[in-house]
Amino acid sequence: MTQSIRKAVKDTPAYPFQAIDVPVKLDQNENPYDFPLELKKMVAERMLSLPFNRYPDLHADRLKVAIGNFENWNPEGVVVTPGSNVLLHQLTSLAGLRQKVLTVKPTFAVYTLEASILESDLTLVPLNPDFSLPVEALKAELQKGGPGLFYITEPHAPTGKLDSVEEVEALLEVAKEHGWLSVIDEAYYQFGGNDFRYAVEKYGNVIITRTFSKAWGLAGLRLGYALTTVELATELQKVISAFNVNALTTLAVEVALENPGYVQKIADEQCSERDRMIEALQKHPTWKVYPSSTNFFLIRTPNASEAYQGLIDHGVLVRRQDSGFMLEGVLRVSVGKPEENDRFLEAAMQIQTS
Amino acid sequence: MTQSIRKAVKDTPAYPFQAIDVPVKLDQNENPYDFPLELKKMVAERMLSLPFNRYPDLHADRLKVAIGNFENWNPEGVVVTPGSNVLLHQLTSLAGLRQKVLTVKPTFAVYTLEASILESDLTLVPLNPDFSLPVEALKAELQKGGPGLFYITEPHAPTGKLDSVEEVEALLEVAKEHGWLSVIDEAYYQFGGNDFRYAVEKYGNVIITRTFSKAWGLAGLRLGYALTTVELATELQKVISAFNVNALTTLAVEVALENPGYVQKIADEQCSERDRMIEALQKHPTWKVYPSSTNFFLIRTPNASEAYQGLIDHGVLVRRQDSGFMLEGVLRVSVGKPEENDRFLEAAMQIQTS
Repeated sequence: MTQSIRKAVKDTPAYPFQAIDVPVKLDQNENPYDFPLELKKMVAERMLSLPFNRYPDLHADRLKVAIGNFENWNPEGVVVTPGSNVLLHQLTSLAGLRQKVLTVKPTFAVYTLEASILESDLTLVPLNPDFSLPVEALKAELQKGGPGLFYITEPHAPTGKLDSVEEVEALLEVAKEHGWLSVIDEAYYQFGGNDFRYAVEKYGNVIITRTFSKAWGLAGLRLGYALTTVELATELQKVISAFNVNALTTLAVEVALENPGYVQKIADEQCSERDRMIEALQKHPTWKVYPSSTNFFLIRTPNASEAYQGLIDHGVLVRRQDSGFMLEGVLRVSVGKPEENDRFLEAAMQIQTS
Repeated sequence: MTQSIRKAVKDTPAYPFQAIDVPVKLDQNENPYDFPLELKKMVAERMLSLPFNRYPDLHADRLKVAIGNFENWNPEGVVVTPGSNVLLHQLTSLAGLRQKVLTVKPTFAVYTLEASILESDLTLVPLNPDFSLPVEALKAELQKGGPGLFYITEPHAPTGKLDSVEEVEALLEVAKEHGWLSVIDEAYYQFGGNDFRYAVEKYGNVIITRTFSKAWGLAGLRLGYALTTVELATELQKVISAFNVNALTTLAVEVALENPGYVQKIADEQCSERDRMIEALQKHPTWKVYPSSTNFFLIRTPNASEAYQGLIDHGVLVRRQDSGFMLEGVLRVSVGKPEENDRFLEAAMQIQTS
């Protein structure tokens, strides 16, 4: 091979994911409903007159305007990438590369993966036992000072927990005072989260990240975006590859933004389904279910491997989380369609009940 | 803002590109022909049954197989990204981040931009005055040793020049001996370039990059790929964001790979058009035209700004290159459709002729 591959890359394990084909797929926090067929037909129609041979917008300028209109946000403060994981990669490049990255644990794997690849000085502060924010311990780390990136996930992944606005603000305050760049990841905000957009103006060092992969039901299209100040957007845009967002995704997301009515309707159904599932699981004799403000929730089982395989045997795929910090025995379950959720609940009640 | 933004980013200027609307667009080395309508219709048809709500392949595995079949290459040695500029970004991350990056100048702007953002130790060796490879000077740099990334562009951009296989091999030999990772960028190989795929097995430290943006006429879809050893592909894949290539691009490129007949037919037409344009321009009283093995060529004018504006006044947009090293007065012209090329030639003959 060559000794030129960086050690940080060699030391990084490959991303663990194995596709498993089962009828009920509750493992990736996807929207269980496909993009409405009549909207797909609009995309197909417009596609025929789209020039495939021409480069798309350099910096997705048209999409920035459409997202800006939807979010009531200055388009110059919007940055768009092919998936919000690319955004997280580039945010780490912007302010975490061989600088500090601070967040809690357990946490979203992409933060730590990118920190490891980009040689960040990574600090993970343990959540409290009830998964609430370790406010004082985080403040102490923030007070040590940047330069670096402070990630806060609202609602939190993978726990699904919603933190109080007061606690988050207390942390943002200290982060600002000590020169950090604060990123609030709002991938799941439509399922009962807060809306921290106001924090961008209030603190000036805050970037909000959002995605079309969850509530919008467009995971296949790959689109994530940041809402921030014009000044921070300008710096962030510099590290984003040109022509990043392809013309087909642009077209489809434009159609979605022109017809957004389906989104909150489905999100609301997902929330009541989630609450129904959580309530039903409280009767499980051996599993403990955690509250959630997202389209997924955690369950703690006596034996994750057995529970996971038992669900697959019933045709239901969920995600193991049991190798994570504080997550012994834990599985993550995405909310599906009502009939899929019924099937999951039936299976659950037959597994590990004695 | 925040002091956490890295200095290397702050010091990087924003990517310079200004969209200008004119009838004849010869500025981005695009294929002038759109993807065939009957193939677009196949894409539109298949799209209706594509689940937009599900994540695409983790590492574009289906596309790797399709590209592997087309290229007669082990799919495990294929890496796919949304545009080859993203590939260049991640190659720089793989082996150039705070390590060496070596290539020639003038060169493709993305190499130097990524090197600057990722804090590489960048060395640019001047081309010879006829744009041929400075073989001895490059050898001397390579002999200083890695770890680092050695870029060689075949045919070269932005000069369009084809180098001899012997010269390239001489460099690859020294690069291997001294621990570099060698990248051969073959974005334009279909227009009369060499085919260095054999070098992957021969040297073991070589990555070939190719794109669907030029000869395939799919710049709007964003797809680039690397062909290399399984071992290098595995390391490279680690730095590529998961779910990187969206489901619509995947679908459209699959349709293209099932129906590749149009590609070489158009590339051949582009080559004869290019030769026709170059021949005609040799009669220009004040411009000097350079030979090319790509779908673009360079012209040296007495005054680039005047020539550029003169062409716009005639409805023709080309790309200024005159701020580049050795490129005083130089414009880059993409080959268009025959009638577009006629319009360019007519305009050219009326500008700076005295």
